[in-house]
This record gives sequence, structure tokens and C-alpha cells, in this order.
Amino acid sequence: MAVHHPTREQIQLEAVFTALSNPLRLRVVRTLAAGGEHPCGALLVGVSKSTLTHHWRVLREGGLIWQRPVGRELLLSLRREDLDARFPGLLDAVLAAIDVAEVPDGMEPVA
Amino acid sequence: MAVHHPTREQIQLEAVFTALSNPLRLRVVRTLAAGGEHPCGALLVGVSKSTLTHHWRVLREGGLIWQRPVGRELLLSLRREDLDARFPGLLDAVLAAIDVAEVPDGMEPVA
Repeated sequence: MAVHHPTREQIQLEAVFTALSNPLRLRVVRTLAAGGEHPCGALLVGVSKSTLTHHWRVLREGGLIWQRPVGRELLLSLRREDLDARFPGLLDAVLAAIDVAEVPDGMEPVA
Repeated sequence: MAVHHPTREQIQLEAVFTALSNPLRLRVVRTLAAGGEHPCGALLVGVSKSTLTHHWRVLREGGLIWQRPVGRELLLSLRREDLDARFPGLLDAVLAAIDVAEVPDGMEPVA
């Protein structure tokens, strides 16, 4: 099923912040910042499928991630190039703040 | 009536982003970034009192603003020092992104 991704120009600042307003989504952004594509099922352990689907949608609609279906797998990656072009310096500051906030890695079970 | 403000250490990153996830609140942050205290009634024109009260609470609980009652007036100011100390560089990046996003000034009537 094809899903909607905003173009670079369509990325809205308030939607970016909505995507960042949840600790689980901050975990995902932190993990994806390492680069590359990640199978969505491995990104957050101990979270129900419907909750995951919700988080992917908010991240996708905020312009934070690409979501690419491959067979039965869904691969997620950070839209770093688009975010850096649209709002220079913002993503780096966000990632630094995530480190300060000591957001745990997405691979640790959700408390 | 005394209202709750989180201490600097209590400021949570996801609550900061929640406070920033609305275009009207982005306007307010932009206006307050000029410095000083601003009477809350002059910050957003054409918005109902109950909506304003909601926005001030989200900004306050996110650690973005100080809210100080003086007589019948409520004065708002940006917690720049606390935010810079807690998440170095984040507020500057947010303000730069608000400029890029062309968030209108809070003094213009809400569309």
C-alpha cells in the first residue's frame, strides 16, 4: 500500500515538532540518525502493532522519515537531507538535545 | 492564582516539542524571543480567552515561558536562559527554523 510522504517543501515546522513530541518517537529518530534503513519491527521493542503504525504515521507526515515497503517488510530511514535543507541546523540541534535528555536507545524494551 | 512552572531540571524534551507543535504557539515564541515581558492579551489577536489559556499552559508546562501575574495582568517571557542551559543550541535552531517557516508575527490577526 502506497503511503503519503510530504515533499521537502511541504514539510511543516509544527508537524516536525508534533513528530518529536513523544519519547518513543524520539527514540526512533535517535536510532535512525545512525543512518541507513531499519526494519520497523526492530525499532521499538514491546510496543503493539497498532501503536507502532500510529507512530510511523506521525513521523512520516511530519516529514521525519521515509517509509519503504519491501516484500512484507517496512524499512524506515531518517530524511536527514530534506530536513537539513528545509530547516538548516534544526535536526542536529534536536539530536544533541536527545543526547542531553538521555533518551534511551530504541532497542531497549519500553518501560 | 499561583501556577506551576517546571524547574530547569524538570524541563522534558518531549514537552518542549509539544509546546512547539502548534503554529500559534510558534508565533508567541517568536514574539517573546525579542526579550522582556509581554502582556498576554497583546500576544495573539483574535483568539478566545479559553484558547489563550490553553496555549499559555502548554507553553508553561513545556518550560518555554515564565508566566507572572501583576495585578490583573499576566506577563509572559521566554525562559531562554533555562532552555539554553538545559538543551544548548536548541532554542536558537528553533528560532532560525521559525524564520524559515515564515511564521507570522503574533500581532497579526489569526487567519
